[in-house]
Amino acid sequence: MTLLLPPTEYHARRDRLQALMATRGLDALLLTTDSDIRHVTGFLTRFWESPTRPWFIVVPASGNPVAVIPSIGAHLMGQGWIADIRTWSSPDYEDDGVSLLAAALAETVPPGGAIAAPDHDGTHLRMPLADWARLQALLPDRRFAGDGGTMRIARMVKSEAEIALIRQSCAIAGRAFARVSEIAAEGVPLETVFRRFQALCLEEGADWVPYVAGASAPGGYGDVISPATDVPLARGDVLMLDTGLIRQGYFCDFDRNYSVGQPSAEVARGHATLVEATQAAFDAARPGATAADLFHVMARIVGETDAGRLGHGLGMQLTEPPSLIPADQTVLEPGMVLTLEPAVTLGPGRILVHEENIVIRETGPEWLSPPAPLEIPVI
Amino acid sequence: MTLLLPPTEYHARRDRLQALMATRGLDALLLTTDSDIRHVTGFLTRFWESPTRPWFIVVPASGNPVAVIPSIGAHLMGQGWIADIRTWSSPDYEDDGVSLLAAALAETVPPGGAIAAPDHDGTHLRMPLADWARLQALLPDRRFAGDGGTMRIARMVKSEAEIALIRQSCAIAGRAFARVSEIAAEGVPLETVFRRFQALCLEEGADWVPYVAGASAPGGYGDVISPATDVPLARGDVLMLDTGLIRQGYFCDFDRNYSVGQPSAEVARGHATLVEATQAAFDAARPGATAADLFHVMARIVGETDAGRLGHGLGMQLTEPPSLIPADQTVLEPGMVLTLEPAVTLGPGRILVHEENIVIRETGPEWLSPPAPLEIPVI
Repeated sequence: MTLLLPPTEYHARRDRLQALMATRGLDALLLTTDSDIRHVTGFLTRFWESPTRPWFIVVPASGNPVAVIPSIGAHLMGQGWIADIRTWSSPDYEDDGVSLLAAALAETVPPGGAIAAPDHDGTHLRMPLADWARLQALLPDRRFAGDGGTMRIARMVKSEAEIALIRQSCAIAGRAFARVSEIAAEGVPLETVFRRFQALCLEEGADWVPYVAGASAPGGYGDVISPATDVPLARGDVLMLDTGLIRQGYFCDFDRNYSVGQPSAEVARGHATLVEATQAAFDAARPGATAADLFHVMARIVGETDAGRLGHGLGMQLTEPPSLIPADQTVLEPGMVLTLEPAVTLGPGRILVHEENIVIRETGPEWLSPPAPLEIPVI
Repeated sequence: MTLLLPPTEYHARRDRLQALMATRGLDALLLTTDSDIRHVTGFLTRFWESPTRPWFIVVPASGNPVAVIPSIGAHLMGQGWIADIRTWSSPDYEDDGVSLLAAALAETVPPGGAIAAPDHDGTHLRMPLADWARLQALLPDRRFAGDGGTMRIARMVKSEAEIALIRQSCAIAGRAFARVSEIAAEGVPLETVFRRFQALCLEEGADWVPYVAGASAPGGYGDVISPATDVPLARGDVLMLDTGLIRQGYFCDFDRNYSVGQPSAEVARGHATLVEATQAAFDAARPGATAADLFHVMARIVGETDAGRLGHGLGMQLTEPPSLIPADQTVLEPGMVLTLEPAVTLGPGRILVHEENIVIRETGPEWLSPPAPLEIPVI
């Protein structure tokens, strides 16, 4: 179960990483987060919810990765393709895997060589800062460096297997969204709608539902990251539900808007504008276009907003590179999976946000989420 | 909605942090993670699921905290008690909040002063390593230091309001566990049981269900962190479900075991041993005892296992300090919330794990989870 994809998938990922490392002069990659470790190993667990224990994967310049992990994970990691699994009983306040990791790195990286960790936007090092300092002190004759975007580049283009998994998650959310009128109506508190919507996602096949956000407010909402209140839906509200659910370790990330009762002309027009902007970005989403190009296509239609970006990559994480912002010059390639997420401002504190998921193909884009109609659905 | 607890709660937390900072000579705390930021601000969102944007809170030696956050969070943060909210449009590849944060720190911390970030076990810095280096370069005449356990100590003892919220989450999970026979039976695939169990948790009042793990295997299971397989439950299996669900931002974390059909004598004895060990630790869980004491009380009854620890703290995170391990000499105090989590090994690859949640009071412990009976329930 831990290895959802065939071993050839992981061998190809190893080879790709090592090719990128070679061009950057990196002797080892040190990975510490769920999605980076899963990219290399296939290790899938919800145990990342516990912050206590650190987990380490070392990808050498050649040969197979080494797992340096708490013993509680040995049984599960042992079901995958990684053969070299080194464990300690964690938590250990004296030495929580640091000397074991240093030994693995010392075997892998020659003196003077470079140990690289992802250090760019959207990343963090998932180990205590004090242990990071201790690790560097144990290896004074190795260099610690950033990964030069190695993981970003390696993960941004998805394999066919990954695209199929994201498509599956999108289809599950699409079926759940199609049933929202079963669970939401005037008078139902928003927090009840959130709960029932998550239950719909599970019923339709989600393994779990890490992300639901949204709002319901008259003629548009104030933000898209708030938890639900206990305020009942009221006639004239726009209800928005945004979900990142997971099936077999891969996310979807898209939303739907609903009008509680007949929409105002302003809301109807706002929704249609969002769908048009999404369609325009879809039409532009061809290999060779940039992430910035898609931003500008949408921004020309929807105007200024506070959202910061109008879409992003998607995969093992709810949001991944690239970002659809003016500064992101990432050139779109076949296999990239993106969200298109335009927003319109209808008035002070009243926005509408729409989101769809697509994959870039040689011949152009394909929808992964079932695209929403121009007319906002009425509940 | 963002501020679930009254402002006095957050004022008391600020005062407590500043008292701890004073004894350690710290001029500012820099916080970057969901639970640390929420401890200070009350800012509750599921948006942490997106790794793209960094979030910063600066707690000065005196006066009120400053929020340095992406503009997408301004509306929600503005509903809480924090008055000084500084925003930028994130992601920004040139400067993702770093110079804004440096300016806030420069105002707060005199030259030569110490800026502290949590650096101990169970913590990490949630910002890109490259930005962390950039921040330090912008403030060459300030010292960057660990927090000397400030956040650990401040968060380990819960307020009455927090205890009430954890009790509420435990009650929800208790009601869901009591209904497992409605959703699990011989022949039902484990992944279906997982999905339906999460729906039960939502139906009983969970806001979301960040953590479900478990297993179903003949006479005991191999580990407690695996995702579900599609293997149907079979007579003779022990089904274990472990959940960390959230209501209003606070976790429960406990599990239940079920026998599919009548249990073997070995399984029945194993379950009774776990409940006895939990009861013994409960009886010992008085102010003045240590985390290590509780470990030893349980280890004497259950013997050696690979789990690494036999319980831990609980609150805004699924697992928090202290750890019930021999090395943890934390003295129990009224208001600490703990899980008791003994494991027994029945044979190679066959363990049973049991878990309950308690709170330490002046007069002794109280159950937060409804304690399981000696006899393993049969489904």
